[in-house]
Amino acid sequence: MTIRVGVVGGGQLARMMIPAAQALGVEIRVLAESDEASAGLAATVVGDYTDWETLSFFAQEVDVLTFDHEHVPTHLLERLVADGVVVRPGPHALVCAQDKSLMRERLAGLDVPLPAWAVAEDPGDVERFLAQHDGVAVAKTPRGGYDGKGVRVVSTPKDVDDWLASGPILLEQKVEFVRELAQLVARRPQGDSVSFPVVETLQKDGVCAEVVAPAPDQSSEIIAEAARIGRVIAEALDVTGVLAVEMFDTPSGQLLVNELAMRPHNSGHVFTEAGVTSQFEAHLRAVLDWPLGDTSLRQPWAVMVNLFGDAGNERIHAALDYSPQIRPHAYGKHPRPGRKAGHLVATGDDLEQLKTLVRGASEAGRQQ
Amino acid sequence: MTIRVGVVGGGQLARMMIPAAQALGVEIRVLAESDEASAGLAATVVGDYTDWETLSFFAQEVDVLTFDHEHVPTHLLERLVADGVVVRPGPHALVCAQDKSLMRERLAGLDVPLPAWAVAEDPGDVERFLAQHDGVAVAKTPRGGYDGKGVRVVSTPKDVDDWLASGPILLEQKVEFVRELAQLVARRPQGDSVSFPVVETLQKDGVCAEVVAPAPDQSSEIIAEAARIGRVIAEALDVTGVLAVEMFDTPSGQLLVNELAMRPHNSGHVFTEAGVTSQFEAHLRAVLDWPLGDTSLRQPWAVMVNLFGDAGNERIHAALDYSPQIRPHAYGKHPRPGRKAGHLVATGDDLEQLKTLVRGASEAGRQQ
Repeated sequence: MTIRVGVVGGGQLARMMIPAAQALGVEIRVLAESDEASAGLAATVVGDYTDWETLSFFAQEVDVLTFDHEHVPTHLLERLVADGVVVRPGPHALVCAQDKSLMRERLAGLDVPLPAWAVAEDPGDVERFLAQHDGVAVAKTPRGGYDGKGVRVVSTPKDVDDWLASGPILLEQKVEFVRELAQLVARRPQGDSVSFPVVETLQKDGVCAEVVAPAPDQSSEIIAEAARIGRVIAEALDVTGVLAVEMFDTPSGQLLVNELAMRPHNSGHVFTEAGVTSQFEAHLRAVLDWPLGDTSLRQPWAVMVNLFGDAGNERIHAALDYSPQIRPHAYGKHPRPGRKAGHLVATGDDLEQLKTLVRGASEAGRQQ
Repeated sequence: MTIRVGVVGGGQLARMMIPAAQALGVEIRVLAESDEASAGLAATVVGDYTDWETLSFFAQEVDVLTFDHEHVPTHLLERLVADGVVVRPGPHALVCAQDKSLMRERLAGLDVPLPAWAVAEDPGDVERFLAQHDGVAVAKTPRGGYDGKGVRVVSTPKDVDDWLASGPILLEQKVEFVRELAQLVARRPQGDSVSFPVVETLQKDGVCAEVVAPAPDQSSEIIAEAARIGRVIAEALDVTGVLAVEMFDTPSGQLLVNELAMRPHNSGHVFTEAGVTSQFEAHLRAVLDWPLGDTSLRQPWAVMVNLFGDAGNERIHAALDYSPQIRPHAYGKHPRPGRKAGHLVATGDDLEQLKTLVRGASEAGRQQ
């Protein structure tokens, strides 16, 4: 009997798990939000993942359940576990990728450096935090934020009046950083793990726009520290599958943990071309409890640029026409301004040439 | 409207076109032989490709029709073309991959070196050919042979009595060769083409068992000659998509053309890992008339070993356990002795180490 992996969510991460599942010879099934989901090719159920009947029906048909996103309510995942479903990562881990305040609380007890933070329940809490941090802070809704949504830079409690009306919020020190890094780790249920090379990520308007692998100009201390932070968190939170740790690299050289994701992550798309093992295959191998793969790079450098708005046939055609070196990834989504619709990758020996190449290709055929 | 590519045949070649189509953002539809076809994930029609109703229904739903194999009868393809279906490669080209005698006739007029050959209609023809070639020849049924089937070494007309009863056969000089090579070319409808690095193939019992890219110990003359032969044939036969030319490398250094395939080919599987552009993506880009990709290698060496009989979860698991460097490709087929069920690839700097690694991994978990 062929092993079946079920993926909740039909976005581009589920879509890019399809080739990995196919190569491994496992059957992939997707619970998709709509008939036109990015991962629609593997959709076996179309419905609402917050609906118990839908979710449990889907889960009963697979050997292991994993995720395209972290939005499945924890109490439903706990019910699945109680019913004997193998859920990886488990709800006890995943909840820390769902709730940013809880994540900070859990990480606070570990030997990993964090920005200063506090949970604010009322304007007075915000006032106090601002007073301690030069009058500026980053406010985050604990749940539901992504790609810059649910994040605000605040200088007065009034900036978050609306959020506080709905419940406590997370406040964080506005970190001065020289760049942002991301560390991916893939971990099996019993603890074996592999670390990918740390990458540099460039955000625009709070959204990942560009990734360079490996992160350039890095010291061996930074490499080791990023890998250590990834391992410590994966172990402490008992993550199964891919964990992505987004970090700030600060002027002093200290790394501070920013966000976590417990699934393949935008920062890891480069490894499909550049790595021996892609993050999608690494995730599947980890949640299947299969031997993990080599995470080393095939070539010295890889650069990825996201395509926003549209990655339809014309734009991909234009990117390919721009250079034969361009590796395309379309997500099969309807065009919408600002939407992550695809990405391009180039790999090679000359980093600056690759950046110019991929950026140029991403502009080719752009509709705006 | 998203472009739709239709693939006739649901084998492993169609299966491995799925990730390529997904990355390009084109929709792939497969006409599969059965519900359990290797490329079943993308199957939209299950039926008999020799049945006109089935084939034409499938073809009307796609923008371009291409193939997993060369077995669709030429008269049906010609009818599709007459109906306005875009068939690539076209029947005028594909017929030369279907009929080995016709292939020899067409190639005979070109500047490409062939083994001595003749079409034999009766035992007397066989006798004469044997007398001219030291009493030994290779006999082939013009149609329907693959993986060593439909091929016999003969030393007397009696060896092919049964075949001659059904029609003329192809006789070829039994070539003394030092090794076998394969040259892949991808060609667009108007003639633009790219050549992959020539590879060395190792056959066991007439079936491809192992491939090394690039072919080791090759002179620049051999590389240039292999590429030239590929281009000349692609151009002369007006091939669209991937053309694979299997060749003998003879003691004198002359290359002789053995077989042709007009689709992705077992000898090109290495390029999924080792090349910037896979043969599957190259084929789709060519039949879509899209810009062709870079065919250069990412790493110095790549070795592929076919998995025969079975490539189920246990065997792939065992191969991955053998080494984290192993890249798996399962075809999702039921086990059957001798069946091509998957393949493994490893890439790197040290060819001998890679060979040992991939061969070892292919033995791990083997059931026989």
